[in-house]
Amino acid sequence: MTPVARAKPRAPGRQRVNDPEGLRERVLDAAAALFQRQGYTATGIQELLATAEVTSGAFYHHFDGKKALGLAVVRERVAAAIEETWLAPLRDAPTTLAGVTAVFRAIAGELDANRAVQGCPANNLVMELGYADAEFRRELAHVFDQWRSALAAKLTDDMARRVLKRRDPDALASYIIAAYSGAMALAKLEQRSAPLTAALTELTAALA
Amino acid sequence: MTPVARAKPRAPGRQRVNDPEGLRERVLDAAAALFQRQGYTATGIQELLATAEVTSGAFYHHFDGKKALGLAVVRERVAAAIEETWLAPLRDAPTTLAGVTAVFRAIAGELDANRAVQGCPANNLVMELGYADAEFRRELAHVFDQWRSALAAKLTDDMARRVLKRRDPDALASYIIAAYSGAMALAKLEQRSAPLTAALTELTAALA
Repeated sequence: MTPVARAKPRAPGRQRVNDPEGLRERVLDAAAALFQRQGYTATGIQELLATAEVTSGAFYHHFDGKKALGLAVVRERVAAAIEETWLAPLRDAPTTLAGVTAVFRAIAGELDANRAVQGCPANNLVMELGYADAEFRRELAHVFDQWRSALAAKLTDDMARRVLKRRDPDALASYIIAAYSGAMALAKLEQRSAPLTAALTELTAALA
Repeated sequence: MTPVARAKPRAPGRQRVNDPEGLRERVLDAAAALFQRQGYTATGIQELLATAEVTSGAFYHHFDGKKALGLAVVRERVAAAIEETWLAPLRDAPTTLAGVTAVFRAIAGELDANRAVQGCPANNLVMELGYADAEFRRELAHVFDQWRSALAAKLTDDMARRVLKRRDPDALASYIIAAYSGAMALAKLEQRSAPLTAALTELTAALA
C-alpha cells in the first residue's frame, strides 16, 4: 500500500492562517508513518513531537491529545490512502476484475520494490483498536463503508452489463476486501508479496 | 474464534514441581486474554499480575519479562487455539470444503453467541507486531506455516481423489487463510459475523 504519509487531501482547515508552516500536516504525516510502522499504542507523544519537529505547544494547539490525533489520522490520512491506492484505480477501470487486478499488481509491485511490508494502514488500526475503542471503530467503519460501497457499485454495474454473474454485490464486495486484507496480513507476516498474488489468482476466478 | 485462554496444551514444563499452583499457566491464560482484548503493547505488567493474581517474584521466576511471556503466549496459547478451532475439525472432515464450512459456521456461531468479536488471536498479533518485531514474526510465522501445511495437505488429498480441480495447493491454502483472516478483521470492525458468512459463500464456490 502507498505509504499513508504520502496521501495528503486538502482537508478543511489545512491552510488555516494560524498554521503558516503546515505544522498540523507535519504532525499528521509523522503520526501516520509511526502508527503504520509500530502501531498507535506503541507511539508516544514525545517520539511523535521529535519526529514531526514540533513543540508540545504547537501540537496541543491543533489536537486535544493523542486520541484526537489518531482519529484525525484515520479521517485525513488512512481514508485518503484507501482512496488513492484502491478506489480511484477501481473507478477508472472498465470492470471490477480489471480494477482489482490493477490494484493488487500495483501494491504487490510496491511491496517488492520497498522490500518491506508494513501492511494496510486501515487494517493495522482495525486489528489494534477495532475491539478496544468504540470511537476508532466508528471512524474506521466509515472508511470501510466507503470502500465497500465503491466496490459494490462497480460490481452492480458489472452485473447490469452482464460481465458478472448476478449475486449479492455487498456480500461480494465485503469478500473482496476481506481477501485483500487477509492477504496483506500474510504479506506482512511473510514480508513478501506472494500472498497477494495467490489471492489475485483466486479472486480472478471468482470475478471472471 | 475460541477464546485463547481456553486452549491449554499440556506443554513441557507445565507440571513442574516448582509450580504447584499452576502459576505459569495462570499467567499465560491472563496474558492471552488481555492481549486478545486490548493488544500486547497496551497490556502492562502490573495489570497482568493483578489479573493473574500472581506476585512479581512468581512472574519473573517463570518469564524473563514481557517479551518472553508474549512469545510463550504465541507458542502455547495462540498455536493451540488455531489447532483446536481450525486444524482438528479440518482433519476430521471428509473434504477441505466440509472442514472449512464447519470451521466458519462454528466460529460465526460463537461470535453471535458472545455478541462481541475480539478477532483471531493469531491475526491480531500479526497485525500489531508482524512488522515491528522480528522475533514475534518468526514465532507467528511458525503458527501460520502449520496452518497452511495442514490446509495444503487436505487440499492435495482432495485433488488426488478428484473432488477438487488441480491447482497449487500451497497458494490455495494461503488464500483460504487470507480470506478467513480478512473476514475476521471485518467481523471485528463490524462486531458481527456477516463477513464470515459472505466469505464462506465465495470460498464454497472456489472449493466446489
